[in-house]
Amino acid sequence: MPSYSAPIKDQQFILHEVLRLSQSNIPGYSDLDPAFTKAILDESGKLASAVMAPLNAVGDRDGCTWDAGKVRTPAGFKQAFEELKSGGWAGIDMPEQYGGQSMPSVIGSAVTEHFMAANQAFSMYHGLTHGAASTILAHGTEAQKDLFLPKMIACDWTGTMNLTEPHCGTDLGLMRTKAIANANGSYAVTGQKIFISAGEHDLAENIIHLVLAKIPGGPEGIKGVSLFIVPKFIVTPEGRLGQRNGVTCGAIERKMGIHGNATCVMNYDGATGYLLGEMHKGMRAMFTMMNEARLGVGMQGLAQASAAYQNAVIYAKERLQGRDVTGIKNPDGPADPLIVHPDIRRSLMDQKSFIEGARALALWAASLIDQAHRLQDAAADGLISLLTPVIKGFLTDQGYAMTVQAQQVFGGHGYIEEWGMSQFTRDARIAMIYEGANGVQALDLVGRKLGQEGGKYIIGFMEHLARFCDENANDAAMAPFVAGIKAASKDLQAAVMYFMQHGIKTPHHALAGSSDFLHLLGHVCLGLMWGEMAKAASTALETGTKDRAFYAAKLTTGQYYMARHLPATALHLARITSGGDTVMALDAEAFSG
Amino acid sequence: MPSYSAPIKDQQFILHEVLRLSQSNIPGYSDLDPAFTKAILDESGKLASAVMAPLNAVGDRDGCTWDAGKVRTPAGFKQAFEELKSGGWAGIDMPEQYGGQSMPSVIGSAVTEHFMAANQAFSMYHGLTHGAASTILAHGTEAQKDLFLPKMIACDWTGTMNLTEPHCGTDLGLMRTKAIANANGSYAVTGQKIFISAGEHDLAENIIHLVLAKIPGGPEGIKGVSLFIVPKFIVTPEGRLGQRNGVTCGAIERKMGIHGNATCVMNYDGATGYLLGEMHKGMRAMFTMMNEARLGVGMQGLAQASAAYQNAVIYAKERLQGRDVTGIKNPDGPADPLIVHPDIRRSLMDQKSFIEGARALALWAASLIDQAHRLQDAAADGLISLLTPVIKGFLTDQGYAMTVQAQQVFGGHGYIEEWGMSQFTRDARIAMIYEGANGVQALDLVGRKLGQEGGKYIIGFMEHLARFCDENANDAAMAPFVAGIKAASKDLQAAVMYFMQHGIKTPHHALAGSSDFLHLLGHVCLGLMWGEMAKAASTALETGTKDRAFYAAKLTTGQYYMARHLPATALHLARITSGGDTVMALDAEAFSG
Repeated sequence: MPSYSAPIKDQQFILHEVLRLSQSNIPGYSDLDPAFTKAILDESGKLASAVMAPLNAVGDRDGCTWDAGKVRTPAGFKQAFEELKSGGWAGIDMPEQYGGQSMPSVIGSAVTEHFMAANQAFSMYHGLTHGAASTILAHGTEAQKDLFLPKMIACDWTGTMNLTEPHCGTDLGLMRTKAIANANGSYAVTGQKIFISAGEHDLAENIIHLVLAKIPGGPEGIKGVSLFIVPKFIVTPEGRLGQRNGVTCGAIERKMGIHGNATCVMNYDGATGYLLGEMHKGMRAMFTMMNEARLGVGMQGLAQASAAYQNAVIYAKERLQGRDVTGIKNPDGPADPLIVHPDIRRSLMDQKSFIEGARALALWAASLIDQAHRLQDAAADGLISLLTPVIKGFLTDQGYAMTVQAQQVFGGHGYIEEWGMSQFTRDARIAMIYEGANGVQALDLVGRKLGQEGGKYIIGFMEHLARFCDENANDAAMAPFVAGIKAASKDLQAAVMYFMQHGIKTPHHALAGSSDFLHLLGHVCLGLMWGEMAKAASTALETGTKDRAFYAAKLTTGQYYMARHLPATALHLARITSGGDTVMALDAEAFSG
Repeated sequence: MPSYSAPIKDQQFILHEVLRLSQSNIPGYSDLDPAFTKAILDESGKLASAVMAPLNAVGDRDGCTWDAGKVRTPAGFKQAFEELKSGGWAGIDMPEQYGGQSMPSVIGSAVTEHFMAANQAFSMYHGLTHGAASTILAHGTEAQKDLFLPKMIACDWTGTMNLTEPHCGTDLGLMRTKAIANANGSYAVTGQKIFISAGEHDLAENIIHLVLAKIPGGPEGIKGVSLFIVPKFIVTPEGRLGQRNGVTCGAIERKMGIHGNATCVMNYDGATGYLLGEMHKGMRAMFTMMNEARLGVGMQGLAQASAAYQNAVIYAKERLQGRDVTGIKNPDGPADPLIVHPDIRRSLMDQKSFIEGARALALWAASLIDQAHRLQDAAADGLISLLTPVIKGFLTDQGYAMTVQAQQVFGGHGYIEEWGMSQFTRDARIAMIYEGANGVQALDLVGRKLGQEGGKYIIGFMEHLARFCDENANDAAMAPFVAGIKAASKDLQAAVMYFMQHGIKTPHHALAGSSDFLHLLGHVCLGLMWGEMAKAASTALETGTKDRAFYAAKLTTGQYYMARHLPATALHLARITSGGDTVMALDAEAFSG
């Protein structure tokens, strides 16, 4: 069965040598010295390894069970959830006012990686609660915040998001769920929602559903959608549980993965709901949750890749098969370990260079959120808005591909469920789909984010790249990184130019390249992260670190990414500039077997 | 639930307008006129769609069950197997002498695509029987052939291949299974084999295991391995079933996919076996089976992609979601069908252009086998030996990626087992692993095949590409194809040069690029196929076909491949020539979470 070990050393390197947290002027960051963050990460790492990871395979094998509207989570989940709660982990970056610890997002993100890597299905219960609580925090009335947040932040109550209906996924304007005003100011919500993660379970005494619905008489389509708080049990004004609300779980889905998390069909039958935020402005409120969720899902891509990679490394060192082509490396054994073989190493380096780069990107993104929220920095807010679809789409597409590579290292054993490698790929697969399928992320990026405020944020990002190259132009150790980032920036610039020329005139031409652009920009981001990490590593080496092996490995891994992955920008650019003609030319009838 | 429709029109196009079968001088090809092949493909297509495809989801959901050494296949499999047998399909390209129909491989391959696409787990029962029968045909004594082949070709008895042991997969030299000579010329085989597909089941009255084992006293390692025929029931000299042999199925594996095919742990306990082929030359004999199996597995990659694609197309045309960015296309409906969206089309074109190109490659490969076997053409034999790892590795890696894309078209529904798209990816995943994991295919290609006879076959292939470009240099309609193939050929040539320079001196540098080379060559092959298909399509258009839409779609799809996929050769070349330094630099200890 797979094991999990939290990558604390690597996270500490990013937090303190790359992002240099405690030197930042972001409020709250000055406390984040290395000893403090290490103490936190050690504890969350222990919880992840010792409590959550051992339940991962159990959850996959046994799954959740539905019986007459009740859902039972896999054996052990309830106990683990209590341990999570008692450690206060669910509210680590939530306001102290409501029982949280008010730590910055960057710490919340680092901790979240551990939990998601150890057990994705389990982590979704509190992850979604976090998102729902954030939405109430941003859009709720004071009374709503006081009533719901302390319990949700403690995870005594969990949260959900209810968007999808059988006939409407991405296109929420087609929504049929209705909310009719009651005399007392509440609403009666009626309709069916599907794919509701953690919609019903036995881990908490109450479940707070955030539900999108239409108030009759409002605008057509997406502009007539409002958001409601619909508790499983009505909450009395004193905060006690009242009567059971008219919301039930009709079924749970049989899925490819994340079996330990119940994916529910939720039936609302005149359920009492409370308007959250403004009437008909439900999408705006939901996007608070969605943006947070998208970054969280990006983290899942990285986390599953990381967990799978760790186990592939263990197997590659232990499994004896074949001999090193340049000479026997393990003369006392019947064969050499897999890790001597160049193509196995190539695969492990693909994984390692992606994971470490993605980790830096995810933590940098979290620090941008802190910068935006805690310093009211509009540039940081714009940049994270631009990067959100990239982090969601690129980290989950690539993260999935890396779980497939990790599974491949195991040969036939990778296909046998007993070894646990199949679960990483099956669980990671959902991250490419939920919270907006990756094609929708690409559409958001090219169709909306790129042109925001006249392209201000992508231009700002390109300037950031140029500045990095300038600052390191005379550093010989940085030469391969500067050269790689320069070349990739050129490709990025050419792609942006192409979209500027075609976006309005021939939008099909632009959108035909949207997924490629998402990947192009993703590679540039990871290239930049490797540049930043290389700078930190070479600084450490120059200033006489004792841990030379660690920093030298960073440089090598970065050079690998520069040599083998960053050049993919040219291929993506070639595809983008090939335009939409061959993409759009065929009649629908021409597509067939 | 997914449906399947055999791609007969496309196959006919390849067989008669690209490969021009009946104009070939290969013995047996002159019979293969369009009406004849269509009649066959119509029938196999019907069997695939009506009988095998409906059992695909059933087999996945219910799987095989093991009870005290007996294995039960999913409900319906036995009846379907009888239909397959009564149609004579299993022996279509086997000698008439033993009850087959002696048709060329190219027909066998076309038929096989239908069966594998409709139900991969089911098709493995007769597919492996075919491979075992081929091995007996090539290496058996006349008595062995007479005794086993008629029953196997009729699929009254099925066959298996037994290579893997718990501690030895690719490295068969580590094998522990022993064969001790009995006084009567037979052997007593003892040991454990794992991952034996169709090792035990209820579809046939006998199972003929081909088992690799070591005869004590023979050479060490791989050179001391012999191949044995070990029937489940001993066969009397008159061909009747005798006593139960000492081979039992100890367990079946719980796997990611192909649940309808039993993956068995086989225990041999002094089982009676008969030497097949020469003593200690078991690997040579087994490679007859393996090469056939590798091409068959490549076909699985294509077939799963094709089945998944068909269903993605249906969904993309039916599912209404969002509006065409350039204007409403379905004004009477609440939304436009998914297929109007550029990124959905991009995905469908990725799939379509891969599948049609791969189909041409698989059928061309089968015709090369016919050429090699029926004309004793050494050049064709060398070329197919070079291309076998490419067809296995490239078609399964890409085929898998395409099933993932097809699943993605379904959004959240793609993750729910009820819709059947998850099964395509889970089933397709095994094809990257079995019959030699794709990394091993890459090693075989670069480490062995490339340098065969002084590089004769890769040089021959590059000449073939050059000839194609020369012949079409003045055809304006062919310009994008000639340009694409020329550029890709240049990359291929540069990669081959790199390997020639580094292969012997620094083999790690060469092998670090082996997977990239496999993909580079795979793209070149598909580029060539698209060139050939474009030529056939533009000829049809010039000579006034009535079916202009079909041929125009071929040209467009080919142009799409040229613009968006063939340029990947440059990225693969960049990786290959970046060498092995960063791949091999790290100490094993540097790999960790």
